[in-house]
Amino acid sequence: MNSSFALKGHICHTPEAGRLVISENAFVVCEEGVCQGVFDRLPERFHSLEVIDCTDQLILPGMVDLHIHAPQAAFRGTGMDHELLAWLDNVTFPEESRYADPAYADAAYAGFARRMKKSATTRAVVFGTVHTQATLRLMERMEETGLVCYVGKVSMDRNAPPALTEESAETAAREAERFIRESARRFRRTRPIITPRFVPSCSDALMAQLGLLRKKYGLPVQSHLSENPDEVAWVKSLAPQAAFYGDAYDRHGLFGREGNTVMAHCVYSTQEETARMKQNGVWVAHCPSSNMNLASGIAPMRRYLTQGLRVGLGTDVAAGTSESMFRAVTDAIQASKMYRRYVDPASAPLSFAEALWLATAGGGSFFGRAGSFEAGAAFDALVLSDACWPDPRPLSVRDRLERAFYLELDREGLVMKFADGRRIL
Amino acid sequence: MNSSFALKGHICHTPEAGRLVISENAFVVCEEGVCQGVFDRLPERFHSLEVIDCTDQLILPGMVDLHIHAPQAAFRGTGMDHELLAWLDNVTFPEESRYADPAYADAAYAGFARRMKKSATTRAVVFGTVHTQATLRLMERMEETGLVCYVGKVSMDRNAPPALTEESAETAAREAERFIRESARRFRRTRPIITPRFVPSCSDALMAQLGLLRKKYGLPVQSHLSENPDEVAWVKSLAPQAAFYGDAYDRHGLFGREGNTVMAHCVYSTQEETARMKQNGVWVAHCPSSNMNLASGIAPMRRYLTQGLRVGLGTDVAAGTSESMFRAVTDAIQASKMYRRYVDPASAPLSFAEALWLATAGGGSFFGRAGSFEAGAAFDALVLSDACWPDPRPLSVRDRLERAFYLELDREGLVMKFADGRRIL
Repeated sequence: MNSSFALKGHICHTPEAGRLVISENAFVVCEEGVCQGVFDRLPERFHSLEVIDCTDQLILPGMVDLHIHAPQAAFRGTGMDHELLAWLDNVTFPEESRYADPAYADAAYAGFARRMKKSATTRAVVFGTVHTQATLRLMERMEETGLVCYVGKVSMDRNAPPALTEESAETAAREAERFIRESARRFRRTRPIITPRFVPSCSDALMAQLGLLRKKYGLPVQSHLSENPDEVAWVKSLAPQAAFYGDAYDRHGLFGREGNTVMAHCVYSTQEETARMKQNGVWVAHCPSSNMNLASGIAPMRRYLTQGLRVGLGTDVAAGTSESMFRAVTDAIQASKMYRRYVDPASAPLSFAEALWLATAGGGSFFGRAGSFEAGAAFDALVLSDACWPDPRPLSVRDRLERAFYLELDREGLVMKFADGRRIL
Repeated sequence: MNSSFALKGHICHTPEAGRLVISENAFVVCEEGVCQGVFDRLPERFHSLEVIDCTDQLILPGMVDLHIHAPQAAFRGTGMDHELLAWLDNVTFPEESRYADPAYADAAYAGFARRMKKSATTRAVVFGTVHTQATLRLMERMEETGLVCYVGKVSMDRNAPPALTEESAETAAREAERFIRESARRFRRTRPIITPRFVPSCSDALMAQLGLLRKKYGLPVQSHLSENPDEVAWVKSLAPQAAFYGDAYDRHGLFGREGNTVMAHCVYSTQEETARMKQNGVWVAHCPSSNMNLASGIAPMRRYLTQGLRVGLGTDVAAGTSESMFRAVTDAIQASKMYRRYVDPASAPLSFAEALWLATAGGGSFFGRAGSFEAGAAFDALVLSDACWPDPRPLSVRDRLERAFYLELDREGLVMKFADGRRIL
């Protein structure tokens, strides 16, 4: 497949946090899967390229979902009258236990992959379950979608129902390594990621083993951090030797430094914790929908931006409502407004341009260079038509773009989707 | 048209706040537009009725939107980086000024009516603009949809751009009366409502005139109340004689007592204000999406429920994101969780069943008896199919219902809609 072409349309992207660049009926060029930049007129050196004419449509970078649980999608939008720990026990763990059955996993993950393919997401960092076979099946399904993903088999050896608790740290490590080797052998776009569920689910012995595997295979890490006050207190009692929650990961080499690490939530991260995150280059996956649904709270995103932390957005299905990253963008803005109103009057809300950056280039950096149309970035793009919403008067492209997010145009107006220059929708 | 029939399916309603009743594959009966109740088996006296078979689909009462601005729909989902007073000046007033042009109003209101018809809303309380002709045109469009509506020509004689400011209290009152008389003559399902925009827009003289009109024609009233700290402070300086914001309406007979009054927002209502509301029987239109988008804050809905205030939900398009009342339901829950987390730990979040009640029977009481399937209520119903979301395992009807709201099934699964027993979709 030829992955060199130009798209013509209203090209909108945020190369930096808060800087929205709109080029009306301009060209964005892809050569061999890599973006060559945005041009008002197509430069002569690209004249031989096919031009896909999307005049008057919105063209933006693909969305990057830094945190989503594939096996929870089956119960998305249900069980929302719980907080985190009760929700894990009553809703999440019973469902995840079903993935011991490969036939169930197969059917459920087919549905998940179908929805992800139809979504505006081009890159995602995904939790599976503790089950190796089911998680490999998930990777197979995701590989077929054309999305670029990290997928983790979850590691957990304590504080969960027996069906989800691995026998010992050694068994857990063996399974994690089997998962890593098999997935690396079988898949190209879908790569493994070390996935301790969270501190309460992982013994020190298991964390140590996962740290060794991370180093041996040079893999990234995903987990949860400082999501909910009860959870934070629990971690304090489970890991008294750790200086703070994130330190319990860092002591085992699972908190940035050498490899990429993304931590979901960070609602209650102390200054000490975020200083370490900054130092270690840990990404924050901000999941505003999840944090509202589980009544966790609101992450101080303005503070993280000011401190220069690496930050992106996650849908966190199924504590988050849906896999729509468009929804995540506006949820992040709304949450930041409530944060300013009720927590810190000095904390300016996220602007639309900042939230869009979080969902694209912000999270995209976890994959190297992705999420903008700057030359050299991976070419991930969306083409959207808002012709489904006729207007009594012409709206500016800026307004149409903002509206696309607030009204979730990804549900009805996503016309094309490209990842690494390949058209996948 | 025969408006006597039975619907068969999963019948879900909330006859009281927090009490969700689900009858699986049962019957709900409509006779001459009035609900006769829910029956597991169809009683013999109804055996001659047509049964519309919606087996395994979700049947619920129509949604009641207590607060929506028709002329703002054209810019919904845009201009969200403002707070209330700046948003009025920069986004809202310029758009509302366009409605002086009947051709513009016509095109815009056609779009609004089309979306309301397709929505899950069966009853709505609607703001027009200050323009009599345009607002009559809006009523004509709404009458065609089959929805049951109150529509108000807005009254405002100060603190707005010249194009939206009526010349004097007398002119304003004359126009309001012309609007009332003409709409009462021309429309059946679409009724006029007295609509002072809010205290800052209405001189005392105008308020006094509107109070007289309210009394003369026995009409209901809609307005805004205690939405935003800056607005509350402004009202205090504009109406120093009033004991509190709502008292500025009450002094002119525009705050319940004799007629129905609905006040949007009530984010900052003091105990004194809510005591008066309780005493006067004023409805609160809680608009969580709007209150988050304009960074207004979160209304203390738990307190209002406990105090026994009359309460319902509004989408408040276009400060609110969309006309979806399904979205309003889950926004209300999320907002109440943030309220508990950040404002009052003793304030329990709204349960799903409570929020559903707000959107149906809670707001429905503004129209008499509507919003539940109890015998004697107006027959407003929705039939929804969630077949668009295949599941790997069967979900309970309760879970399917909750998911329908969190994932806005009204956008893709609304199969039928009835208002006053008439099928309108």
